Amino acid sequence: MNILIKHIADYVGQRVTIKGWLYNSRSSGKIAFLELRDGTGFVQAIASQADLGDDVFSRVTSLTQESSIIVSGNVAAHPKKEGVFELQILSIEVVQLAQEYPITPKEHGPDFLLNNRHLWLRSKRQWAVQRIRDVVIDAIYEYYHQNDFIKIDTPIITPNACEDSTELFAINYFDEGEAFLSQSGQLYLEAAIMSVGRAFDFGPTFRAEKSKTRRHLTEFWMMDAEAAYVEHEESLQIQENMIVHIVQRCLEKCRQEFQILERNTEPLENIRAPFIRLTYTEAIKRLQSLGSDIQFGEDLGNDDEGLLTENEQVPVFIHKWPKAIKPFYMKIDPENPELVLNNDLIGIEGAGEIIGGSQREDDYETLKARIEEMGFKGEEYEWYLDLRKYGSVPHSGFGLGLERVVRWISGVEHIRETIPFPRLINRLKP
Amino acid sequence: MNILIKHIADYVGQRVTIKGWLYNSRSSGKIAFLELRDGTGFVQAIASQADLGDDVFSRVTSLTQESSIIVSGNVAAHPKKEGVFELQILSIEVVQLAQEYPITPKEHGPDFLLNNRHLWLRSKRQWAVQRIRDVVIDAIYEYYHQNDFIKIDTPIITPNACEDSTELFAINYFDEGEAFLSQSGQLYLEAAIMSVGRAFDFGPTFRAEKSKTRRHLTEFWMMDAEAAYVEHEESLQIQENMIVHIVQRCLEKCRQEFQILERNTEPLENIRAPFIRLTYTEAIKRLQSLGSDIQFGEDLGNDDEGLLTENEQVPVFIHKWPKAIKPFYMKIDPENPELVLNNDLIGIEGAGEIIGGSQREDDYETLKARIEEMGFKGEEYEWYLDLRKYGSVPHSGFGLGLERVVRWISGVEHIRETIPFPRLINRLKP
Repeated sequence: MNILIKHIADYVGQRVTIKGWLYNSRSSGKIAFLELRDGTGFVQAIASQADLGDDVFSRVTSLTQESSIIVSGNVAAHPKKEGVFELQILSIEVVQLAQEYPITPKEHGPDFLLNNRHLWLRSKRQWAVQRIRDVVIDAIYEYYHQNDFIKIDTPIITPNACEDSTELFAINYFDEGEAFLSQSGQLYLEAAIMSVGRAFDFGPTFRAEKSKTRRHLTEFWMMDAEAAYVEHEESLQIQENMIVHIVQRCLEKCRQEFQILERNTEPLENIRAPFIRLTYTEAIKRLQSLGSDIQFGEDLGNDDEGLLTENEQVPVFIHKWPKAIKPFYMKIDPENPELVLNNDLIGIEGAGEIIGGSQREDDYETLKARIEEMGFKGEEYEWYLDLRKYGSVPHSGFGLGLERVVRWISGVEHIRETIPFPRLINRLKP
Repeated sequence: MNILIKHIADYVGQRVTIKGWLYNSRSSGKIAFLELRDGTGFVQAIASQADLGDDVFSRVTSLTQESSIIVSGNVAAHPKKEGVFELQILSIEVVQLAQEYPITPKEHGPDFLLNNRHLWLRSKRQWAVQRIRDVVIDAIYEYYHQNDFIKIDTPIITPNACEDSTELFAINYFDEGEAFLSQSGQLYLEAAIMSVGRAFDFGPTFRAEKSKTRRHLTEFWMMDAEAAYVEHEESLQIQENMIVHIVQRCLEKCRQEFQILERNTEPLENIRAPFIRLTYTEAIKRLQSLGSDIQFGEDLGNDDEGLLTENEQVPVFIHKWPKAIKPFYMKIDPENPELVLNNDLIGIEGAGEIIGGSQREDDYETLKARIEEMGFKGEEYEWYLDLRKYGSVPHSGFGLGLERVVRWISGVEHIRETIPFPRLINRLKP
């Protein structure tokens, strides 16, 4: 019976066939130990010269790394390690004897590995990170569908910029002139929720950050969510419940991946709602008392985010920022017209900002004045302003950076390892 | 208690609050009937002058279309219609009295509606289509996760073209020169499955089809799937099982949406595996016998697809096409070197081609020769050829066009209605 390694526990004592690749091997006299992988997991397969005969055994011991092989054998529980299973090989078919594989257990530089990303993905750590990424994605879909949000695919090709237009990739769009790759689907989601109530998007976004380092992705995946009749406080609850849900699902499904990554899961096990809430004003005071020279009205730097979270067990909301340093669409705090009802969510363990969100300005005149203050022409936002003419409602939303969440949960250092094929300022291939 | 309309059946006899919009209203003497919507559904709410008093009743009857309102009342089962519920209004709060709404029950032209897409989405039919789209998306994720595929996000910004490079949107990519928006993640998925075994992507793809009509989308969503050790026949089974799963989920979850769209669901209820399989050669013969003047070696047109499916209850696979009219990466049919192991899947009811797929060429020398035959330089495909050096395995995959599937299942005529914010050759806004 053909099986996948992830299901091997169900087949103890039975003969099975596994189709995969040789990840690693060592031999000791008349016994060889092959580490097989099939994409769903890894298993040790044991070849015995006595069982297989001299010819077959000799072929087995000369298999190269990454050779594709189909192995049949009996499944046994590992004599000492609980939850570990082995395969006693009865027959083996070599699909292809691999040429000498360029990625070896020795250390390689990042450029070499990135040039060979199509192969590097097969390394155990990279495999584990991609599987965690998939579980994070799936948990997000699950959370939203359980909470009555539907997916609305917002457009990638857009006529105007949601945020800073200096960091946009431009394309020529037929007779319509220049168009830009989206940095956020938020404004479109705001239109959609006036139809469907609650919606999320989840797609690629693009930032042509010329000034940024080689460590910044130019293409990355964002999940935006938006909900009608949801105000600031409820939005924070939706955000924290989502993060708790994602972490729980990873803990349930990714034990093996965390082991491979040597990820201490204790900090993840302690994640529960409610998260810590600091107003921006409180955060500035706390930072100053901790020795930071940050002043009210300034954005937080990485060091500030680190200081605010270093002794915390759960992520930290920083909310109600000065409107002067935030985009026009955030709703003015009714208790203080210099502030907006927004929030960042700063992860623990150096994760940085993983979510940014706000209640949206729903008053037509206030929003129009804010747009004009920012120096935008009214015309390009006319459709957006329409949403405040025809049944405007209080509403809130936020955006989550997938790669930042995957980096935090998987515990890898570099964000480039969290996306299958990273696009960096100096890297477009493979 | 605040509830969503979709859950109203659980609250018969109770007082609830619904936050939404006025979709429609009529009054008859001392009774007014309001059709409320909240994004999750529609419900009739009944206002009685006797219950509410003259002032409130007068405000209710002067509410404009799309006004945002919060309504409290008692839930009752409709006296005559099973499964229909009503709200007897006890109080009403007007969040915003809407200005005169531009979209009225009268007929509007497509340009007017597309210019107002941000509002048009609120119309019942557009709402229903977007909800079906969400169920299709969710069913696809569910199907793949149940079948041991993981999501791998393939890059959008790519250095080379998977298919025809004349239909690509180009961007300037820093010092790396010109880059293109992806038309397919297939080649990248092929690399990924050598790590994770089975993978799918699901993202936006772009076609700058200058020669095409105004009815073609330039931005649309594709789902690509790819699996190691899966050959042609098993790939067809994966495809048909996926379609059956999608249709089943829509039938389970979208009864109300189908009613709104006046979609006869009988053809959907008859969709079951296996689908019909015709070789390309058989299809050409059948078409000729049906009066088509198509010749062997030609691609099928819309009319041909219609002829082959018009009397069928299930979609039709047309497989094993001449290699001369197919891309280089398709595996040569071992039984006939002029054919490839590919397939299209043609939907019933005029759905057209909803899937295209193939087994992939896994032999290094054959693939290299095919690439050179096509006039490509080896260099840009070097990484792709690597996959055939290091543990090459038989593998297959296919791509599904989301909008085509949504168009078929929802029964709407125009593909532009199946995507929230359509991008057409002459349309970039809103």
